[in-house]
Amino acid sequence: MSLNDISDLIRQLKGRGAKSVALQFPEGLKRKAAGIASDLRTAGFEVIISGDPCYGACDLALDTLNYANVLVHFGHAPITEHPDIIYEPYRIDFEINILEKALPLLRGRILGLVTTIQHTHSIPAMRSFLQEKGFDVRISNGGSRTPQTGQVLGCNFEAATKTGAPEILFVGTGLFHPIGIALSTRSRVIALDPLTGIASEVSGDTLLRRRFAVMEKARTASSVGIIVSTKSGQQRLDLARRLVSLSPLATIVMMHEVIPDELLNLGFDAYVNTACPRLAYDDQIRFPVPVLSPPEFEIICGIRSWDDYTIDEIL
Amino acid sequence: MSLNDISDLIRQLKGRGAKSVALQFPEGLKRKAAGIASDLRTAGFEVIISGDPCYGACDLALDTLNYANVLVHFGHAPITEHPDIIYEPYRIDFEINILEKALPLLRGRILGLVTTIQHTHSIPAMRSFLQEKGFDVRISNGGSRTPQTGQVLGCNFEAATKTGAPEILFVGTGLFHPIGIALSTRSRVIALDPLTGIASEVSGDTLLRRRFAVMEKARTASSVGIIVSTKSGQQRLDLARRLVSLSPLATIVMMHEVIPDELLNLGFDAYVNTACPRLAYDDQIRFPVPVLSPPEFEIICGIRSWDDYTIDEIL
Repeated sequence: MSLNDISDLIRQLKGRGAKSVALQFPEGLKRKAAGIASDLRTAGFEVIISGDPCYGACDLALDTLNYANVLVHFGHAPITEHPDIIYEPYRIDFEINILEKALPLLRGRILGLVTTIQHTHSIPAMRSFLQEKGFDVRISNGGSRTPQTGQVLGCNFEAATKTGAPEILFVGTGLFHPIGIALSTRSRVIALDPLTGIASEVSGDTLLRRRFAVMEKARTASSVGIIVSTKSGQQRLDLARRLVSLSPLATIVMMHEVIPDELLNLGFDAYVNTACPRLAYDDQIRFPVPVLSPPEFEIICGIRSWDDYTIDEIL
Repeated sequence: MSLNDISDLIRQLKGRGAKSVALQFPEGLKRKAAGIASDLRTAGFEVIISGDPCYGACDLALDTLNYANVLVHFGHAPITEHPDIIYEPYRIDFEINILEKALPLLRGRILGLVTTIQHTHSIPAMRSFLQEKGFDVRISNGGSRTPQTGQVLGCNFEAATKTGAPEILFVGTGLFHPIGIALSTRSRVIALDPLTGIASEVSGDTLLRRRFAVMEKARTASSVGIIVSTKSGQQRLDLARRLVSLSPLATIVMMHEVIPDELLNLGFDAYVNTACPRLAYDDQIRFPVPVLSPPEFEIICGIRSWDDYTIDEIL
């Protein structure tokens, strides 16, 4: 965060009449906490840093608001608005010409464009670049969890789906988002890492094969824990209650962090994850037993067909 | 938990008119969760299991009360009473004659007796046994955190201190409690594990030497995080604010679980732990940097003398 940004934040905080401020950072930005806290203390605020893990705006440190007038949440766009929360997204710039690297992989002229919150400010420049190359660029608003145009989350691909485009360009790091987009949209998906310039076509096939194996293993479970998150933007108790009603073997397990050791200690033969959808897909290797998504559990309970497999999203 | 206990619990729950019940277990009893949940479901209750880590009645799953009428907390005596919480301590019996094993280590006739919640129901039998052997047995009530007579916690040794005895017999597993008793009371302390029959004299010297080394290392820290817990019975914000006022290098860090990786990510050079006191003493080896107790921080800030070293207790 530059000095300029800090001045602006201090102005906002003073404008709200705040005396005490809580700061929350995702893991990758936590190192900035001590410095920003020091700057704010010098400016006269009492400061509390939230030290809990944080992976998204779905995981607000609301408890700090019992002790501070305002919570500043860094690195993410709002999933839920709150009068006492200031969101400070963290922008990462890149050289727009890097999009060149994705062009050889694109087949059609109609192209959906999506990215993550670090790069949504570059959407207009990316659109211009692609239009100049002759593409009919489709950029959509997502749902309420993704307030920025063209923004996707690991749990929400609506901004991709709503383009209706047969081919989607995802600009961002990692393969989880583009795999999710592929499974959610069934469109062709090209992923471009704007920092390394590595572009690739992404398919959901490998994930699907792995998930079908996990589901097969979960079939023989004689007890199933239905995980419900207590995090502000991940709590799907209604869904969990519906899933519990599908099986006499199922019990609701409420957790803040979904910790492998706790799943082991509780001793259920399998779990269904209604918290952050990525947990089941990304972290299965860390879990001692199968952890299914809600649609996967519906399939093994026989109320959804295998052909109707879908990736879990929070809408 | 025997069937009999379950019937009694069901009676209590029905007596309260509860429709939905949340269950919370410490790590060692978590495996009982699925079975008890199933029994309660059969009796007509909606059941939610708390899946978060739990190490004491200082760590109540209060959030489950947003979704359930009653929380049943297993394995601990109350630290704070709550109208919607039922405490179900977990009793572990042992052969009273095992106390014989401690006798050769005792020197005087005046003897303080303390134990942990699993064994407080055996206090009368232990008293009789020791009286028959000719001891003047002193058993005290502790403070508000330890409602059972003769009960100590890892964070509270008042029931030992208040005996005023020059020699104290601790009956229980592990060495943390008796070391804490030795440092808190400065009495001679004999520990007896009532399950193995192993008895030993316990001193705080090794812990003290280790702690002095950690304090020395913390002296050069250029930033200090003052950890405040958000757990129901571990929150000492007033203490933390007083500690922050001792040093311009200090910032409050609020955490639910004190996770080594998070301390690393935040990047402070040292921390002061106002959460569960055991964390600093027991878990230093897991932490990436020095984690001091509040009295230790006072010593390195120069407002407490080294001779006045004391173990951290929550009173």
